[in-house]
Amino acid sequence: MSIRIGIYGYGNLGRGVECAIKQNPDLELAAIFTRRAPEKIKTVGENVPVYHIDKASEMTDKIDVMILCGGSATDLPVQTPVIARLFNCIDSFDTHAKIPAHFANVDAAAKEGGKVAIISVGWDPGLFSIARVISGSVLSDGKDYTFWGKGVSQGHSDAIRRVEGVLDGKQYTIPVKQSLDLVRSGADPELTTRQKHTRECFVVAAEGADKAKIEQEIKNMPNYFAEYDTTVHFITKEELDRDHSGIPHGGFVIRSGKTGKDLENRHIIEYSLKLDSNPEFTASVLVAYARAAYRLNTEGVSGCKTVLDIPPAYISAKSDAELRSELL
Amino acid sequence: MSIRIGIYGYGNLGRGVECAIKQNPDLELAAIFTRRAPEKIKTVGENVPVYHIDKASEMTDKIDVMILCGGSATDLPVQTPVIARLFNCIDSFDTHAKIPAHFANVDAAAKEGGKVAIISVGWDPGLFSIARVISGSVLSDGKDYTFWGKGVSQGHSDAIRRVEGVLDGKQYTIPVKQSLDLVRSGADPELTTRQKHTRECFVVAAEGADKAKIEQEIKNMPNYFAEYDTTVHFITKEELDRDHSGIPHGGFVIRSGKTGKDLENRHIIEYSLKLDSNPEFTASVLVAYARAAYRLNTEGVSGCKTVLDIPPAYISAKSDAELRSELL
Repeated sequence: MSIRIGIYGYGNLGRGVECAIKQNPDLELAAIFTRRAPEKIKTVGENVPVYHIDKASEMTDKIDVMILCGGSATDLPVQTPVIARLFNCIDSFDTHAKIPAHFANVDAAAKEGGKVAIISVGWDPGLFSIARVISGSVLSDGKDYTFWGKGVSQGHSDAIRRVEGVLDGKQYTIPVKQSLDLVRSGADPELTTRQKHTRECFVVAAEGADKAKIEQEIKNMPNYFAEYDTTVHFITKEELDRDHSGIPHGGFVIRSGKTGKDLENRHIIEYSLKLDSNPEFTASVLVAYARAAYRLNTEGVSGCKTVLDIPPAYISAKSDAELRSELL
Repeated sequence: MSIRIGIYGYGNLGRGVECAIKQNPDLELAAIFTRRAPEKIKTVGENVPVYHIDKASEMTDKIDVMILCGGSATDLPVQTPVIARLFNCIDSFDTHAKIPAHFANVDAAAKEGGKVAIISVGWDPGLFSIARVISGSVLSDGKDYTFWGKGVSQGHSDAIRRVEGVLDGKQYTIPVKQSLDLVRSGADPELTTRQKHTRECFVVAAEGADKAKIEQEIKNMPNYFAEYDTTVHFITKEELDRDHSGIPHGGFVIRSGKTGKDLENRHIIEYSLKLDSNPEFTASVLVAYARAAYRLNTEGVSGCKTVLDIPPAYISAKSDAELRSELL
């Protein structure tokens, strides 16, 4: 019998979840829930039941795990506690600073409902967090580095588009190769924000707009660009659509540490991702952790968890014995 | 209160465990057990109690977790089941094909004793297994690659030393850079044994030995070298001791997979290690998992586990709340 999944919120991430479910024969898409008019939703697959989110609470017996696909800013802080009372669920809450508060809210709700909720699932937070915790536990004397990119930052792209005279734009975060190599060499450098990443912007300007002014405004924007070496390229809308329509991303988690009587031996642990589609990869992580939420709940567990609380075997479709003989 | 660790077997790995315990304030070295005469053992630290292994069974109230540091060929298959009846314990059993049988033996013993045993801890099996299971669960449609090196293979070095006319020798396993890059490019190549690794040998020949004959004998040795491109360098004993006394190792676990409606998006997950000292790094992994064995047992769990059954948070010295706010 397959695990019945509900998708709560249907944007890029929700569509990614729909695709990912099709890649996993032990999972089955039970329903999609949307805030929009259900009849106007065009799903990736055929004959997928789409309901208004108000219907979700009537379907607790039809869904084993709900995957929340809303945003971290306003959707998930409200939605996850509500859903966790009714369903086992997974979210990708990624506002690092607010995780403890979100965890507490969801934990109370999930315990009340006797359900398991796994929050902050994805790659950062998510797979990168696992890499940081394992590497840091193994190499106690060491230093952590996280680099992101090359990839599209939605927040920075939005910031560009808010500049006067800008019609459209896309921003890539790019790790500085020399700094990455320095870290890999075991030099344990102290790196400034500027030394870790550069920012590259592709901008479509309105006709007659002052490009020099736009460029300066972008480059000096506090929090977003001022602390970085930023490059601005002006291109046409056609070029933007042709060359920059993807949502690639990725990054590197590196721990450099020492062991031995006099800490004379150096070790480097590196975990990296190179992703063609950030939302589809994140969706694939969410779907794998849905297995864990379901399995834990069938074992009688309830409450809020994160990826750090989940044994690797729990996210696999293979049995423990298969994993031991094939992958250990 | 710190977790009291016993070291069972005191070679390179045991010494590595002794050093690793000193790097972790929440752990304490309670005793070292050896098959040799205890008074002849020179420990890394001062005033470390050393006992004959026969004394271990009298010390069940003094040790929270025993770390077995014997070899997989003959020591661990016998020792781990015996120790698991008396102590929570960790071993680094690494004969992949025999893991299911070893697991069954240790599981029965640990359950009988009400203890937790975590077997096959280290980096492969171990951290690499975690990478394989997580990557494979997230990217269901994909291909796995494991490369080892650059590093010293003890088994191959031993094989060299058994050749007539060879006084000493060291063998390095080296991943083929072009194949690694091909995998990283997402080409999903089918790679032969020869295409994945080369073998480089540094050999000290006896005076007057037939070097050409030694080289041919090494290169044509079945199982060890015949399937690989092997290079043999003849050097002096002084050069061997000066340039090849370390025990470095490392490797790469890469999964290349696809997502999307028509599997149109490609993702690469790469996990890699670059280690100055294979035994010291392995020891650091064993020590981290000792925390997990202890914690699970205090929660009432017993039986045999592997790294795949352990939540990342259980190997950390930090609390769950600290991990969520600092590393998630």
